[in-house]
Amino acid sequence: MARINASIITIGDELLIGQVIDTNSAWIAQRLNELGIAVERRVAVGDTTTAIWNALDEELKTCDVLLLTGGLGPTADDITKPLLCKYFGGNLVVDDKVLQHVKGIFERRNRPMLERNMKQAEVPDNCTVLFNRMGTAPGMWFTKNNKVIISMPGVPFEMMAIIEDEVLPRLQKMFVSDVIQHRSIITAGEGESFLAERIQDLEEALPEHIKLAYLPSYGMVRLRLTGRGTDSLRLSKEMQLRQEELANRLEHCVISLQDLPLEQIVGKSLVEKHATLGLAESCTGGNLAHLLTQAMGATTYFKGSIVSYYTEIKEQVLGVSSQTLASHGVVSEATASEMAKGAADLLRADYTLAITGLLSGTKDEHGVEPGTVWIAIKHADGIFTKKLQLFYDRLRNKEMATQMALLYLWRVINGKV
Amino acid sequence: MARINASIITIGDELLIGQVIDTNSAWIAQRLNELGIAVERRVAVGDTTTAIWNALDEELKTCDVLLLTGGLGPTADDITKPLLCKYFGGNLVVDDKVLQHVKGIFERRNRPMLERNMKQAEVPDNCTVLFNRMGTAPGMWFTKNNKVIISMPGVPFEMMAIIEDEVLPRLQKMFVSDVIQHRSIITAGEGESFLAERIQDLEEALPEHIKLAYLPSYGMVRLRLTGRGTDSLRLSKEMQLRQEELANRLEHCVISLQDLPLEQIVGKSLVEKHATLGLAESCTGGNLAHLLTQAMGATTYFKGSIVSYYTEIKEQVLGVSSQTLASHGVVSEATASEMAKGAADLLRADYTLAITGLLSGTKDEHGVEPGTVWIAIKHADGIFTKKLQLFYDRLRNKEMATQMALLYLWRVINGKV
Repeated sequence: MARINASIITIGDELLIGQVIDTNSAWIAQRLNELGIAVERRVAVGDTTTAIWNALDEELKTCDVLLLTGGLGPTADDITKPLLCKYFGGNLVVDDKVLQHVKGIFERRNRPMLERNMKQAEVPDNCTVLFNRMGTAPGMWFTKNNKVIISMPGVPFEMMAIIEDEVLPRLQKMFVSDVIQHRSIITAGEGESFLAERIQDLEEALPEHIKLAYLPSYGMVRLRLTGRGTDSLRLSKEMQLRQEELANRLEHCVISLQDLPLEQIVGKSLVEKHATLGLAESCTGGNLAHLLTQAMGATTYFKGSIVSYYTEIKEQVLGVSSQTLASHGVVSEATASEMAKGAADLLRADYTLAITGLLSGTKDEHGVEPGTVWIAIKHADGIFTKKLQLFYDRLRNKEMATQMALLYLWRVINGKV
Repeated sequence: MARINASIITIGDELLIGQVIDTNSAWIAQRLNELGIAVERRVAVGDTTTAIWNALDEELKTCDVLLLTGGLGPTADDITKPLLCKYFGGNLVVDDKVLQHVKGIFERRNRPMLERNMKQAEVPDNCTVLFNRMGTAPGMWFTKNNKVIISMPGVPFEMMAIIEDEVLPRLQKMFVSDVIQHRSIITAGEGESFLAERIQDLEEALPEHIKLAYLPSYGMVRLRLTGRGTDSLRLSKEMQLRQEELANRLEHCVISLQDLPLEQIVGKSLVEKHATLGLAESCTGGNLAHLLTQAMGATTYFKGSIVSYYTEIKEQVLGVSSQTLASHGVVSEATASEMAKGAADLLRADYTLAITGLLSGTKDEHGVEPGTVWIAIKHADGIFTKKLQLFYDRLRNKEMATQMALLYLWRVINGKV
């Protein structure tokens, strides 16, 4: 079975000057992977004819499927459509279906339509139009020398709709390709060198078609096995065996065999225990609540968070005593514990986590070092407290504190402290 | 003055299968831009010798400065260092300074050091070692045919430290280059087509060396002017004139002339008014508080947020009446207003914003459509309320609700409602 390779070209000066972070490519890569199509290269170029033209020439040398995003809007910096039309030798013509769709969008939003919006209904006569149900710029599908070239708008949700509605079904029909599978082992509490040491023999014994990668982040390491084969069922069994082998060896630090963000791993534990969660956040400033509510299921276990950023809110809303604040300071085990108790009274959850810390700057008046964070987790059997000492800058310490809070919450819920 | 072009190669399978989003490139591009070095291309490749080797060959055809990130860790999937050594014809030797540094890191963290960590102190003998104060893998600086090739670890804060400590000062010395300047006009409430229409004559009159780009997102459009020249002061004056011209024409919808995230634009308004802010969040789940506390200055104006995700928390903590909930429902003007009043009593801020919405799913028992969001903003002169109707999926609606809440807050604070 042939291996199908893809390249992605993202178009836009905003990507090259760092004004916008490219999230499209990662999403596209995941979707193509599910079909067994491997993305071999991703290239970002600016809004100039030469840069786009050269990138087309170059990527078409090696890939079977080329996806482009960006440069299809109604303003003067959007040059992709006429360029592709010329590159593949076509002429721009109005597409009636697209025109009706664009008119409909403006009608529904009760906005008058401009000449430049009409132009969005023009498409090269040598492409297949890919319907964009989420916006005005249609996608385009060209074929040349048995290669497929797909152009889509850069607006993420428009691109996603076109990929799912139009691109994936066509690619699936067109290419019979290798199967690619991933399996993960999410660990916490050990560095990647130590993990590598412990599993060295297992890693060396992996067959050629299964690769292992280490992805460290915020006190955790994600191990990822990637396998490639022709028989989906056989590969799946083989991958499961390797995953189990590694997970058994690393048992003391495995927290999940699914590649989920930590807040969802915590969420699953709460669902399993039929337990609810409440928070009292200071230094994480609502980030814990925000992450937890990214998961749809959070409505069943997440009651709420008291984000007490000002010290007076810790006193007046959470009931932390002024004596505690005066003698121990805002960043202390005593304050974290009283925050947890106060939030538990207000929110009446099975688990209540409080967090307070000094993310950056200089020592406070109680001699607390920057990077010091206190976590307190109140539950039916008592209260767990933990001090962290973080080493980075303010925003990274905020994220680190958030992730470590989730990790200790997972440990407390699962009785692993 | 010569134009200096850079390319960035990011190395790692995780970037190609979509497991990790590349934030490094955007950051690097911004830093290089400040020196007048333009990033012309960004390429992502996997952890294979062929892919990296070919990318080196290809990018070195066109760029003056080539930056690589990734593949320098202590595990088997990290192959960049031996590859670069071979590519530039050197031998791996132990660097004493790096060795002492790596040993020190392990000592401070109280962890034993492994053979594979020792290996991190090996560097090619034909490169300049770039000291990595944040981690164990050093950066490397090669030169070939008047081109500079820089290899750095992929861990963002290690890469950032190397760029700032070692790379930028060296590049500045080496290249005298064009000046690149950006100016922004942040607008809200008008689509990009309409903006383009209103400023068409001004856009057409821009000189060759000043470009205009439109970046729409979440109800806002960021206009960005990019200018290139040899005389920094002259370019700056010219850019300012063009920016003012555009901003005057679009006066009714301009909210900032600085390219800041909306939460920081709101923060600046609060600082100017010496006012404080409190929140009662339901559907945004803490995201508003999280974004507001990303800014260092938030400690001066942001008091806190009551994230009332469960309906019972709206009643018991915020004091929304059970009658209001029963007759108007959770997503209603009445509930949003009572949430704002309740939070104002608890947090005693000058402005209190409450938000409640149904982000996805089906109509609720009060006939509220999914995508409906109510915002209430309580302030000294009364209460402002606003209904939003959003059209996207759950997570996008959450982000949209967050951004629209910030926008209406900015308008209320600045008396523009």
